[in-house]
Amino acid sequence: MRSAVYRGPGDVRVEEVDRPQREASTDAIVRVTHTAICGSDLWFYRGQADRDVGSRVGHEPMGIVEEVGDGVRRVEPGDRVFAPFVISCGECEFCRRGLHTSCVDGESWSDHGGAQSEYVRVPHADGTLVRVPDRYADDEDALESVLPLTDVMGTGHHAAVSAGVDAAEECVVVGDGAVGLCAVLAARRLGAKQIVAVGHHEDRLSLAEDFGATETVLDTEDVDAAARVADLTGGGADHVMECVGAAGAMELAVDVCRPGGTVGYVGVPHGTDAEGLPVFDLFSDNITLAGGVAPVRAYAEDLLGDVLGGTLDPSPIFTKTVDLDDIAAGYRAMDEREALKVLVRP
Amino acid sequence: MRSAVYRGPGDVRVEEVDRPQREASTDAIVRVTHTAICGSDLWFYRGQADRDVGSRVGHEPMGIVEEVGDGVRRVEPGDRVFAPFVISCGECEFCRRGLHTSCVDGESWSDHGGAQSEYVRVPHADGTLVRVPDRYADDEDALESVLPLTDVMGTGHHAAVSAGVDAAEECVVVGDGAVGLCAVLAARRLGAKQIVAVGHHEDRLSLAEDFGATETVLDTEDVDAAARVADLTGGGADHVMECVGAAGAMELAVDVCRPGGTVGYVGVPHGTDAEGLPVFDLFSDNITLAGGVAPVRAYAEDLLGDVLGGTLDPSPIFTKTVDLDDIAAGYRAMDEREALKVLVRP
Repeated sequence: MRSAVYRGPGDVRVEEVDRPQREASTDAIVRVTHTAICGSDLWFYRGQADRDVGSRVGHEPMGIVEEVGDGVRRVEPGDRVFAPFVISCGECEFCRRGLHTSCVDGESWSDHGGAQSEYVRVPHADGTLVRVPDRYADDEDALESVLPLTDVMGTGHHAAVSAGVDAAEECVVVGDGAVGLCAVLAARRLGAKQIVAVGHHEDRLSLAEDFGATETVLDTEDVDAAARVADLTGGGADHVMECVGAAGAMELAVDVCRPGGTVGYVGVPHGTDAEGLPVFDLFSDNITLAGGVAPVRAYAEDLLGDVLGGTLDPSPIFTKTVDLDDIAAGYRAMDEREALKVLVRP
Repeated sequence: MRSAVYRGPGDVRVEEVDRPQREASTDAIVRVTHTAICGSDLWFYRGQADRDVGSRVGHEPMGIVEEVGDGVRRVEPGDRVFAPFVISCGECEFCRRGLHTSCVDGESWSDHGGAQSEYVRVPHADGTLVRVPDRYADDEDALESVLPLTDVMGTGHHAAVSAGVDAAEECVVVGDGAVGLCAVLAARRLGAKQIVAVGHHEDRLSLAEDFGATETVLDTEDVDAAARVADLTGGGADHVMECVGAAGAMELAVDVCRPGGTVGYVGVPHGTDAEGLPVFDLFSDNITLAGGVAPVRAYAEDLLGDVLGGTLDPSPIFTKTVDLDDIAAGYRAMDEREALKVLVRP
């Protein structure tokens, strides 16, 4: 079968590899029909994160179940399914708590061949896979709206939940990538009255407005973004979503957080200052830092209901679609910011 | 009047200074009868924190009101009062929220002459001072139990509140200084069933047991303290109180926190790695970091009720008492760990 393989910075290629086989009775094999390129994939693509050369990539699979082992009960061949970016058993203490990212048997797709492939082996299929109801299983529009539940929509939602967004008076989203935009959607869905989106790109901030941002702040060298947010929010917000992971974004998030407020962060910490947090600012203002790697499996059914019901639609984040064979062009488009997020069809 | 003055590392002396005068109608002048040396005072004493040579020190005053300005309504001359380590107006948004440390008019005692003095000027007396009911105003035993409400008892309580300790199954206190021991008292008061105290000193851990710790772990070079705590708690606790502020203590706190749990931290970050937090561990385990500089004013009435009612007694943390004139001996005793915390009588 064909699979996207990392061959070094700037070089992701489609290669012929062995088709995966079931290895345990709880495995399923899924034929991938839709997947995506993630902003976090750009880190290894740009040489900013270590990755083994020759490893297969992608972690946002949706497709059709081809085979299941004897121990799989919740899905069967022919089902339309998707899976979050972390494999989880669904049965351990942490899965039961909704913290599937800490599953005692948790694994990443990298351990099993990436999701930017024709087929994936899915360990713990009952825990990992989410079934799309038959009624929507071949509805292409619906499926494009469901696909972000594999990662970015659940991650944006986790930012909002972690930041304590509820029917909050005001909140701030730092970051206008796919996750930040999904955080805007999540905050609106949770009832936030004022949603200030901060980012570096006018076109993305325009989409943030479509998604429910009440104000946007274009963060450029000429602008004191923190001061602008403080103006808009009357001195900072109690609920801030940090959706980038870079040190500068975290500093801005803490800066615009009101004393006693909460920063919900979901951006994987990276960059030269990755180890640093503005600890003195957090400490002196009693700002809570909550969040982490998003347990998107925990939110899947809830968000899926809204997507299929038509009240939540993150699909506008896909601004480009490529076939798997053209995935190199997809990476280039995201790297050069020509595309916000790329949908891939194996 | 006499006041303790910082003259350089290892050198705190009593000197003659001008007695403070009222400067605003909302000021009071308090004759200090009891105060204390704080673990955080040791940082400048040891040269580990910057402090202006010649500055007056101390931030835990209790005493008798001598004078009040025309605008002071809640206390009058003759009242027994104490004050937290931060001056607060009691009326702004943050004071109303219980975050007095973010008071818009907040100041520290250093700005007004330290509390290790015969007299202090108290700005915003109505907001800052807490009145001890007349019935207990001259009860020496009660007053020694009240004095820790100026700082360490409120700080330990803030650690417990920030860590989400309630009738929690298990919690961990990292640190066996006065704040850590008060956190044990606070956790017991809040109903924690298992309280594991971790520290470096057998005698202090023994006091932790008196205060309600169900188990103690002596953290020495020969012991893997994190593994021992994990054993005792079945893999880590959901509620961890970090009561030191050093990087190593924070690392241990995060290490013994269960995924999805909360570290409540109140130790002022300090040391060579002060800027560092184990951000990847926090992120990957979705551990919430809550707390900060403790708004002890917010907790004063509540804790005072328990102290005067006889159900909360932090006074055993005072293992030495000195007159103000002998305060140098008090600093030495704390620096050399001969004393846990020193009560000072001006």
